[in-house]
Amino acid sequence: MENIEFGIDTFGDVPSGPSGELVSHAQAIRATVQEAVVADQAGVDVIAVGEHHRPEYAISSPETVLAGIATATENIRLSSGVTVLSSDDPVRVFQRFATVDALSNGRAEVMLGRGSFTESFPLFGYDMADYEILFDEKINLFNELLGEKPVTWNGTTRAALQDVEVFPKTESGRLKTWVGVGGSPQSVIRTAHYGFRMMLAVIGGSPERFAPYVDLYRRANDQFGHETLPVGLHSPGFVADTDELARELMFDAYKEQRDRIGASRGWSPMSRSEFEHEAAEGSLYIGSPETVARKIATTVQSLDIGRFDLIYSGGAVDAGARLRAVELYGTKVIPLVREMLAEKPAKINN
Amino acid sequence: MENIEFGIDTFGDVPSGPSGELVSHAQAIRATVQEAVVADQAGVDVIAVGEHHRPEYAISSPETVLAGIATATENIRLSSGVTVLSSDDPVRVFQRFATVDALSNGRAEVMLGRGSFTESFPLFGYDMADYEILFDEKINLFNELLGEKPVTWNGTTRAALQDVEVFPKTESGRLKTWVGVGGSPQSVIRTAHYGFRMMLAVIGGSPERFAPYVDLYRRANDQFGHETLPVGLHSPGFVADTDELARELMFDAYKEQRDRIGASRGWSPMSRSEFEHEAAEGSLYIGSPETVARKIATTVQSLDIGRFDLIYSGGAVDAGARLRAVELYGTKVIPLVREMLAEKPAKINN
Repeated sequence: MENIEFGIDTFGDVPSGPSGELVSHAQAIRATVQEAVVADQAGVDVIAVGEHHRPEYAISSPETVLAGIATATENIRLSSGVTVLSSDDPVRVFQRFATVDALSNGRAEVMLGRGSFTESFPLFGYDMADYEILFDEKINLFNELLGEKPVTWNGTTRAALQDVEVFPKTESGRLKTWVGVGGSPQSVIRTAHYGFRMMLAVIGGSPERFAPYVDLYRRANDQFGHETLPVGLHSPGFVADTDELARELMFDAYKEQRDRIGASRGWSPMSRSEFEHEAAEGSLYIGSPETVARKIATTVQSLDIGRFDLIYSGGAVDAGARLRAVELYGTKVIPLVREMLAEKPAKINN
Repeated sequence: MENIEFGIDTFGDVPSGPSGELVSHAQAIRATVQEAVVADQAGVDVIAVGEHHRPEYAISSPETVLAGIATATENIRLSSGVTVLSSDDPVRVFQRFATVDALSNGRAEVMLGRGSFTESFPLFGYDMADYEILFDEKINLFNELLGEKPVTWNGTTRAALQDVEVFPKTESGRLKTWVGVGGSPQSVIRTAHYGFRMMLAVIGGSPERFAPYVDLYRRANDQFGHETLPVGLHSPGFVADTDELARELMFDAYKEQRDRIGASRGWSPMSRSEFEHEAAEGSLYIGSPETVARKIATTVQSLDIGRFDLIYSGGAVDAGARLRAVELYGTKVIPLVREMLAEKPAKINN
C-alpha cells in the first residue's frame, strides 16, 4: 500500500471567473495549466486531462495541454483521462504522447478509452455502429506501436502498415498505458489481455459495487501471465476548508452539469438530497480535507486500489476555489489518506 | 520595412552531443525547446517547427512541441513549418493550434503545407495519387474552421460536417495562417485566394529567382481584394562567431543530410565547392553574424519580403553550437539586419 498514487483529473471544464461569468476556452486551458503547476508543487502524483468536443469543456486535444504542462512542471506525471482512441489515429496518439514524454523527461502516461460522449464520432467521420470494432482494432494497433519496433498491421478501420517505424521513440522504450473502463466485463478482460493498467470510472453510487471488476481484472491479469498491476479509480469531488464551503462552492455547478448531461440520457434532475446522499454514501468526494481523506481511504481499502484520482473540476465552479481545491488535495488530503492507510493497513497487499 | 520579422525554423533534427554521437529523439525535442527559450530571450520574433516522419527528425507532431514551448516562453510567436495538412485532419489541426494559442496567450500561427517528403501518406492511409485534391479540400475546410462558427462542409477526402462547432475557440477569433509554398504558381494563387500569408521555401540557388512568385502573390492578392500581406521566405544557414567556424561546424552535417535526401531524389553528392557557392551566391546563410546579416539584408531588399526565417538546424550539428547559433541570430544578426535595412531602405514599401 505504500506505493499508492494520488491524482487529479479534469476535462478542462470552463470555470467561472471573479464576476461569476464563464471564462473563455483559452482561459480555461490556462487555468488547467495553473492547476497542474499548483498540484506539482503540492506533491500530487499525476494529472490526467480528458478529451471532449463540447462547448463546456475546453480540452479537445489532451496531449497538447499536457505538453504545455510538461515544460511548466517538475515531478507530476502527465496522463490523458481519456484519449478517445476509437475516433483518433493510434499512430498520431503514439507520436503525440512520445513527444509529451520527451518534453517531460519521461513523465507521460496514456489513458485510452472509447469516450462516454459520442460527439467525436461524426466529427471525425466514424460510425457509431463501429463502436466496438474501432476500439478493438485501434487498441490492438496501439499495443503494437508501444513496442517501438517496425510494425506490420492490418485491419478494417485504418490503413495497413507494412514494416513501418514511428517517431519519435521514447527514452524508456515504452509508454505507460492505462485503459479507462466504465464497467463492462469485456473491457476489463481486454485491458488485462494487453497488460495495460485499468482505471475504473466510478461517477455515482457506492464504489464497492465495482469490487467484482477489480477481482475480474486481477484474475484475468494472472491468467494472461502478466505482472500484478495496480488498479486505479477516479471519481468526482471537491475540497474546501470546510464541509459547508465545499458544498456551497460545488452544488450549483455540479447540478447544472449533471442535469445538462442527464437531459440527453433520460436522467431526472438532481435534487439536493441526492447530492447529499452521493456525498455521504456514494461517489462524491466532497468536503473538508479530513472528510475527503476519510472517504478516499475507505474506498482505497475496500477495493484495494493502487491509485485514486479526484475529478476536481465538475462544471463551472469558481476558478479560484478550484485552484484552492487542488492545493488542499495535495497538501492536506493526500498526506491524511496516507496516514489513515498506515494506521489501518489494507486487507490485501497491493 | 520597419515591421519586418525574423524567425528561426527547425524540423527537430537530431543533433550530436558532446561525444559526437547522435542524441535521442527525446533529447532532440528538449533541445528544440531550449533553443526556443534562448530565441525568446534573444528577441527572435517567431519559431516554426516542422512535421516529419523520419528517424533523423524528432518532430512528428509540431503542435505538441509548440505547446511545450508555449509555457516556457514569453514573447516569441509559435508556428509550424509546416503542418502536413494533406495527411492530417483539418479539425484536429485547428483544435491543436487553438490549444497552443490558449497556452501561449495568443502567440500561435499555423503554417500549412503539402509536405516535401511523402512518408506521411502511407503512414496515415492516404494515396499519393490524391496529392492535389487532398490539399485542395483540406485547405478549404481549414479556411471554414478559421471562422470559428458552425461549419457545414462536404468533400470526398474527409467526412462531411453539418452545422458543427469545433472547440476550443481562440480569444482573437482567428488563427494567423500561412501556407508554405515550394514554387508552384497554383500554390501561390491558392494561398492568395484564401487570404493566407505566403512563406516561400528557398533551399538552394539564388533567392532572386523567386521574385516572380512574390509578384504573382501580390497581384493575385490584390485581385482577390485582400489586404496587402507580407511575404515570408525561409532558407537554411548557420551562425557562429567567425565565417570559418560556421563552415567547420556545419559542413559535414549539411553534406550528410543533403546527400541522404539527394540519394532518393537523384541528386549527385554535394561537393565542398558547391557548398561554398551556395554560401556565396545561393541560399545558404552561413558565417559570422555580419556575413549572415548582410546576406539576409540583400535578400530582404531584393525580394521585398516582410519575414525571413533561418532554418538553423540542418542535420546533426553539435547541439551546443546550434544553441549558440540561435543566440547569435537573435542578439547579433537581427539587430544588424535592421541597421542595414534602415541605412538602405527597400525599393518598394512592404
